Amino acid sequence: MERIYITTILIGFWIQSSLLVSAVADTKQLKLWPMPKSVSYGHERRYIGKEFELKTEGSKYNDGSSILKNAIVRLLDVIPAGHVIEANFSSFNPSHILKGINVVIRSSNDELQYGVDESYKLLISAQGDLVNLEAETIYGALHGLQTFSQLCRFISKTRAIEVHQVPWIIVDEPRFSYRGLLIDTSRHYLPLPVMKKVINSMTYAKLNVLHWHIVDSQSFPLEIPSLPKMWNGAYSREEQYTMADAAEIVSYAQQRGINVLAEIDIPGHARSWGVGYPSLWSSTECKEPLDVSNDYTFKVIDSILSDFSEVFKFKFVHLGGDEVDTSCWTSTPHINKWLQKNRLNASEAYQFFVLRAQKIALAHGYEIINWEETFNNFGDKLSRKTVVHNWLGGGVAERVVASGLRCIVSNQDKWYLDHLDATWQGFYSNEPLTNITDTKQQALVLGGEVCMWGEHIDGSDIEQTIWPRAAAAAERLWTPYDKLAKDPREVVGRLAHFRCLLNQRGVAAAPLLGQGRVVPSEPASCYNQ
Amino acid sequence: MERIYITTILIGFWIQSSLLVSAVADTKQLKLWPMPKSVSYGHERRYIGKEFELKTEGSKYNDGSSILKNAIVRLLDVIPAGHVIEANFSSFNPSHILKGINVVIRSSNDELQYGVDESYKLLISAQGDLVNLEAETIYGALHGLQTFSQLCRFISKTRAIEVHQVPWIIVDEPRFSYRGLLIDTSRHYLPLPVMKKVINSMTYAKLNVLHWHIVDSQSFPLEIPSLPKMWNGAYSREEQYTMADAAEIVSYAQQRGINVLAEIDIPGHARSWGVGYPSLWSSTECKEPLDVSNDYTFKVIDSILSDFSEVFKFKFVHLGGDEVDTSCWTSTPHINKWLQKNRLNASEAYQFFVLRAQKIALAHGYEIINWEETFNNFGDKLSRKTVVHNWLGGGVAERVVASGLRCIVSNQDKWYLDHLDATWQGFYSNEPLTNITDTKQQALVLGGEVCMWGEHIDGSDIEQTIWPRAAAAAERLWTPYDKLAKDPREVVGRLAHFRCLLNQRGVAAAPLLGQGRVVPSEPASCYNQ
Repeated sequence: MERIYITTILIGFWIQSSLLVSAVADTKQLKLWPMPKSVSYGHERRYIGKEFELKTEGSKYNDGSSILKNAIVRLLDVIPAGHVIEANFSSFNPSHILKGINVVIRSSNDELQYGVDESYKLLISAQGDLVNLEAETIYGALHGLQTFSQLCRFISKTRAIEVHQVPWIIVDEPRFSYRGLLIDTSRHYLPLPVMKKVINSMTYAKLNVLHWHIVDSQSFPLEIPSLPKMWNGAYSREEQYTMADAAEIVSYAQQRGINVLAEIDIPGHARSWGVGYPSLWSSTECKEPLDVSNDYTFKVIDSILSDFSEVFKFKFVHLGGDEVDTSCWTSTPHINKWLQKNRLNASEAYQFFVLRAQKIALAHGYEIINWEETFNNFGDKLSRKTVVHNWLGGGVAERVVASGLRCIVSNQDKWYLDHLDATWQGFYSNEPLTNITDTKQQALVLGGEVCMWGEHIDGSDIEQTIWPRAAAAAERLWTPYDKLAKDPREVVGRLAHFRCLLNQRGVAAAPLLGQGRVVPSEPASCYNQ
Repeated sequence: MERIYITTILIGFWIQSSLLVSAVADTKQLKLWPMPKSVSYGHERRYIGKEFELKTEGSKYNDGSSILKNAIVRLLDVIPAGHVIEANFSSFNPSHILKGINVVIRSSNDELQYGVDESYKLLISAQGDLVNLEAETIYGALHGLQTFSQLCRFISKTRAIEVHQVPWIIVDEPRFSYRGLLIDTSRHYLPLPVMKKVINSMTYAKLNVLHWHIVDSQSFPLEIPSLPKMWNGAYSREEQYTMADAAEIVSYAQQRGINVLAEIDIPGHARSWGVGYPSLWSSTECKEPLDVSNDYTFKVIDSILSDFSEVFKFKFVHLGGDEVDTSCWTSTPHINKWLQKNRLNASEAYQFFVLRAQKIALAHGYEIINWEETFNNFGDKLSRKTVVHNWLGGGVAERVVASGLRCIVSNQDKWYLDHLDATWQGFYSNEPLTNITDTKQQALVLGGEVCMWGEHIDGSDIEQTIWPRAAAAAERLWTPYDKLAKDPREVVGRLAHFRCLLNQRGVAAAPLLGQGRVVPSEPASCYNQ
């Protein structure tokens, strides 16, 4: 009898272990994106009830800005609970109906900043009728709601919104705190509804920084209240943003846990600045870079950053500094004279410009992000508060952090979305910590960013160029390194599923198979394209 | 004295006439799309007030379904009144502030049907503080609100929403009552948010029929309650529409003055029908067309149309009938035997099928639309209640109406949106009444439709393939013939402006210049692309 008893226990243990092992192995196929840090699940089924409601028992968070309330509305919309449901609830086991979600947030503070705690714990128990979500901050809770939304599926057979594989225990937090998307409103104006749609879509992949490349050579669309003629550089009166528009974007993004990084790219990429204030040009024949010899140039930068500080509350501001062709300085007499007077060659004048602009930004309380060339040319002179934005290629982040500076990774061979031949596999595989093994140096890599440059991008094609490739990078930036697939082919099913989820939510994500922004090759299911 | 008096009067009259003449000539450049039937305007400016409200003094319409109320909400959203306005109202002449719009609708009936009165009169007087809109029905009023929305412009200088060129007198009604867009949810499933966005965008160009090509060879995504296995032919469980979904689409469209024309394309284009009910196939090796010899086939059609009649309330149903390859009938023994027994050749069996299906539809209270081949092959046998849907090419409408039948024009050389090389100029110039001079026959042309076939179209690229070319056709179908431009080059400025308006409203309309669905060629203003 004892032998049978022991054998039964051993068999039971073996079965349970097998189940656990299979559960762990099977997480690789879970239809979640990005993959959470830690997931376990079961085999039961639950149904979302008709009056699925928000509870906040035990929560310290005071939802003064309605961030949580609005997020619940959005959740119910995408599940879609607002879908006309004809589910026959009397046919379900009453104890299998989920009546609501209890969201417990430990911090009452809703300030959104770089490095805010974005962790959460999502529990869907086999007992009780509530989903449980815990987080340190509201922003962690937003991510938890996103994950929960991906567990909900409308099942046409029962006409119910079902949650399969209950119980769920998901404990999650991002690997990197900076997970960005750049948009460019200078090469093409992007109307507010377009920008908002992009911001909203970012939340589905848990991206959390919108890098707004606001102005450039071609146009200056943003109002600068202290310099009313700056936005004369816009393409047209219809293609402008008031500062109130900018504030609306910042607010819309904050409601979704997304920071807005404002960029003024200087001294190059700035031809449009002189449309309203021609003295900013080196000369009327030579319009880029901005005139380094003119004190007024720096007064203008100061004014702009002063106005920015009223609206853009992210701790960083981006001052550009890339692709500076100094010919206009050396070839323009008054500037050439100034160079000689100050004993600067053109390259040193570039350094002078960048460092002086940095000081202005620091005086306004910002920390600075600059494009990579500033580091490549005079990295040791940069403010120690500089974050270097790598874009030219791989192998840069390691040098930046070795020098003690922080880094954001956007190497163009892999993470430029306007490069249509950059594949989703390449986006997935681009590892920010390549060749960085020292943990202190690893901590200096803030994260990374995919870049949607606007030369060929306007409201008609932005979404399909961003998605789904940005999602591939989003998992690289969120999911722990050891849970990422070594071979992207392992994730094609999950990413195809995520792409179809985006489409179901009205996001124009392009087919997965092929280059960026391909169109469907033939009639087919979404899941096969 | 008398001579001076008379001269003064004559000069005054001449000046007034000149102004009128210039006003008339300048309507060709007005930023309205489609161009209204009759427009006059002035030189004054008005401002939309902070609490712009709806009034209905003198109106007979009872807004039980909230059609008007919801339309006002949408109006305020696109103007955009919800835009954070910092206008300094104290700087405007108080008598120039428009406090609201008075909408007078003469009919209390909100039934939407083919041929409903869509006329309206829009008056923005130089006196008073209200906009005045009059219409016979709510649906005319919706068009009037659209036109009004195009007169409103956010002016960055004053930060106000302004109406220029007041007073306006616009008296308008469509040339054709059937102004359609076809979408195809069989080649690719289109999620509900995508369909809704398309429907909403149709209202901007005053299109009024959504032709829903629901099923075809590749997939059968729609639930048929009386035949629960029909939608097994969907690509996947995630790519299905419940009947409640369909009802939601019909309701969403009706709120916007748009009828939904449901199509089941039979007997060809129907391979997906047999996934749930294999006996509908000629054989398991030969799956199209549907088995003409099987009574069950017609029971199925009857069931489907019975279920349709609960949801699709448009007076027409589309029964397809195009591209029928009868080889499966002659090569399948039991069908071949049936043909012989009934003394029908394959072509006569095609006719038999179409006519029998027509009778079923008529019994359900529908009038029928059939694709052109039915007319080409046995036009004199078709029910006199048939509307022939021309698609193969030009020169067909004239033959259809000469035979006494009604016609809808969609000739593929000009009005197929999936033909990317079909230019907006071609869309604009395609005249439905070509070679039809007899007024009784002209009345038999109900209108026309642009077709967005789905072989390469899903949620990722549908909007930019539809717009802006569908807008060019929309003017051809709305504006009186004598007000249309003889040379499309005359309207490029107006159409570019409309394309940018679509973008501003979040509709992904492609650049105008080039083929269908081009991407922006370079950094530029929207208005130059």
